Amino acid sequence: MEEKFDVIVIGSGPGGYVAAIRAAQLGHKTAVVERAELGGVCLNWGCIPTKALLKSAQVYTYTRHAANYGIEIVGESRPDFEKIIARSRNVADTMNKGIQFLLKKNGVQVICGHGRLAGNGQVEVTPAEGDKFMVEAKHIILATGARPRELPFLPVDGKYVINSRHALTLAEQPESMVVVGSGAIGSELAAFYSAIGTKVTIVEYLPNLVPLEDEEVSKQIERSFRKAGIATRVSTTVKSVEVVDGKCKVTVEGKKGVEVIEAQTVLAAVGIKSNIENIGLEELGIQVERDKVVVDDYYRTSVEGVYAIGDIVHGPALAHVASAEALCCVEKLSGLNPATVDYQNIPSCVYTSPEVASVGMTEREAVEKGFEVKIGKFPYTASGKATAAGDKDGFVKVVADAKTDDVLGVHLVGLNVTEMIAEPTMVRALGGKVAQIMRTIHPHPTMSEAVMEAAAAVHNEAIHV
Amino acid sequence: MEEKFDVIVIGSGPGGYVAAIRAAQLGHKTAVVERAELGGVCLNWGCIPTKALLKSAQVYTYTRHAANYGIEIVGESRPDFEKIIARSRNVADTMNKGIQFLLKKNGVQVICGHGRLAGNGQVEVTPAEGDKFMVEAKHIILATGARPRELPFLPVDGKYVINSRHALTLAEQPESMVVVGSGAIGSELAAFYSAIGTKVTIVEYLPNLVPLEDEEVSKQIERSFRKAGIATRVSTTVKSVEVVDGKCKVTVEGKKGVEVIEAQTVLAAVGIKSNIENIGLEELGIQVERDKVVVDDYYRTSVEGVYAIGDIVHGPALAHVASAEALCCVEKLSGLNPATVDYQNIPSCVYTSPEVASVGMTEREAVEKGFEVKIGKFPYTASGKATAAGDKDGFVKVVADAKTDDVLGVHLVGLNVTEMIAEPTMVRALGGKVAQIMRTIHPHPTMSEAVMEAAAAVHNEAIHV
Repeated sequence: MEEKFDVIVIGSGPGGYVAAIRAAQLGHKTAVVERAELGGVCLNWGCIPTKALLKSAQVYTYTRHAANYGIEIVGESRPDFEKIIARSRNVADTMNKGIQFLLKKNGVQVICGHGRLAGNGQVEVTPAEGDKFMVEAKHIILATGARPRELPFLPVDGKYVINSRHALTLAEQPESMVVVGSGAIGSELAAFYSAIGTKVTIVEYLPNLVPLEDEEVSKQIERSFRKAGIATRVSTTVKSVEVVDGKCKVTVEGKKGVEVIEAQTVLAAVGIKSNIENIGLEELGIQVERDKVVVDDYYRTSVEGVYAIGDIVHGPALAHVASAEALCCVEKLSGLNPATVDYQNIPSCVYTSPEVASVGMTEREAVEKGFEVKIGKFPYTASGKATAAGDKDGFVKVVADAKTDDVLGVHLVGLNVTEMIAEPTMVRALGGKVAQIMRTIHPHPTMSEAVMEAAAAVHNEAIHV
Repeated sequence: MEEKFDVIVIGSGPGGYVAAIRAAQLGHKTAVVERAELGGVCLNWGCIPTKALLKSAQVYTYTRHAANYGIEIVGESRPDFEKIIARSRNVADTMNKGIQFLLKKNGVQVICGHGRLAGNGQVEVTPAEGDKFMVEAKHIILATGARPRELPFLPVDGKYVINSRHALTLAEQPESMVVVGSGAIGSELAAFYSAIGTKVTIVEYLPNLVPLEDEEVSKQIERSFRKAGIATRVSTTVKSVEVVDGKCKVTVEGKKGVEVIEAQTVLAAVGIKSNIENIGLEELGIQVERDKVVVDDYYRTSVEGVYAIGDIVHGPALAHVASAEALCCVEKLSGLNPATVDYQNIPSCVYTSPEVASVGMTEREAVEKGFEVKIGKFPYTASGKATAAGDKDGFVKVVADAKTDDVLGVHLVGLNVTEMIAEPTMVRALGGKVAQIMRTIHPHPTMSEAVMEAAAAVHNEAIHV
């Protein structure tokens, strides 16, 4: 097989498949080369299956606290780990079939195998079985994504020391777990396993849990995690993991000295590493800095006709960023004039309980950048909807520019906030002011009123605090 | 007792207490006159307690479907009606105490009794016990709210035929119920009672359930209600209710002729009637049209120094509208220059399962007003987050102006949409375009992506359908 395309995308994650579909929409003969599952890590081993697990955890938590809502459980509820995992896989499979359908519907050809740049518009494809072959395109988009990072002192064996991928398909629920790293992945899996009864300890190297978030958010998450029975160690490094008699002994060192934590399983959630090996970058002389392919504002690499998007380029390694880059890249190479991706306005979510969502600068960042900052906060304890929902852990914090009333950042923690962050993100995209959030009618009773009230608090005009 | 104030507010609902707090913030010596519970109907007999009931219903539904999430209930779950009601009252009490606290904190004096305009800045207060007395203020704001409407063929006796208020504190769960009227109140209470096991039939006079919503939303709600076991009769009028042997026989007439529906209880949810009687309007000659006090853009009545806000004036009778009017009214009478309330941009929510939320024009309204309309729709079935949540009934529909790309209306149905409507409401407030929603990064995976995709669908650029 050899065939010519207008556009070939290597990798079919939320960068790659979106690029392919948009290219096809714009009339390009398009192929996507994928060596594993369509949809990439996000859909098969990341965003989607974890949300399915966390939904099971939420339902289990509701059953445990049902009496608080006037619901009596005569007998008991218990998590069926195998079924929870099976459901999560089923959700991923459903979405995977959806991508298959979308690619087919848009006339995108799916080529199974490992893709590698071969120069002059050629891509060498190595299928799982059978011979290598070449395909060709005017435009080749690299969207090969990333994989869990491995650290020397924390070698992953898939049994005792696992990564996020293993954590999604364990055969049995561990009785205890040490989670190393409290970014989104570590925190979400810690929350899931803890909710269904695993004794979880989170170890974070930095001084705060979810360390990319505003410090007040981190503090709330730490309080909530502890309330939920998750042990936390911040400013703590992992020195070593030993397996003794089938148990992991995790030696950590924090402010209080050295401690050995015993657990059945250690989950390494220490970041990701981009997949830039063995895709022909060196052979073509494509510029790479550290772990990232160097691209311009439209994702053009240093070699004409080759583009790169998603986790292998600069910027946060998030599915929605990859998709936005995909659209920008494809529209530009199609001769359209898309706006460049606004890296200052990327929402970020952590689907723990309570949820975390944020956009823009933290208070500390804003201060460090020299802004005269005004803060407005509104707690969920003062929200009628949160009270009715029985879920009062949370708040909204608006970081405003005191001089211009610009929305520098918004930080939310609490039930539903991952759906609420779209509003402040839009306000920032449209150049809206804090006063405009405050003066726009929000429906009552919703948690979104907390965004309005936090904005009002910036102006000392909040009503409900 | 006789005392002089700058501002007296009659009624302490979400119009009245917000007016009082804002007036106090602005330095006015302020009192609020309340004959019943602080917080009014919304907080005590409306928005808040119903949301508490619906949360209990949601938790019960999760326990019933727990197996779908891999959670095994060994034994059974059952709703404890008395405890569910008690929890709802407790939530209302908590919020009520919150209002007490806020009024006190802001230095607002609470005067218990029925307030009535007495002319020349005087308000006559009739307390539950003791003598009438007078208080006086330069500015008097009427915020007396509304009560359930009663129709001649549906007299409410509080036992067999009840209103929404009775429905919140029934001593026992009815085995069966006919709900007359499918606006927000009727639909929410129908959803609650049905979820906990009452056999519910909704009778709607108009051709669609939730008749103020876009027709496609109504159709989805009808499908979802039927799936949940709620019987529905649209284009159907109630002719009479007879009580025979302790059972209600409800005679209705629809397209298929006359039918008699038997039920233990009939809930009349046929709208509201504003509380404009016995508050001195006639004596002062304040202009009234139909059921509403006539006011200008700043809520000034025809008599100087007397203002009216909330359910007793024009506009939708919604808590958040009353609050917005309160702020505008108080700021204007304080000499500030507030923007007038934008009645074209009021979000509206129904907290059924699935939830409903909308802002702006329905498709039909937009067409009738002569707009060249473009529609973009995105179904929850294509949403990764909805799939992970196991809640795929829903969609987002954007009604766009084909010429200007303005967002004429947005209509959502599905899980979490009551929190998602804030985004399109803000876009409309800021004059944003459909393309700007489409091009603003929304976090993955969230249901808010469906708003972005529906916007993209307007431009035939949706990726995931």
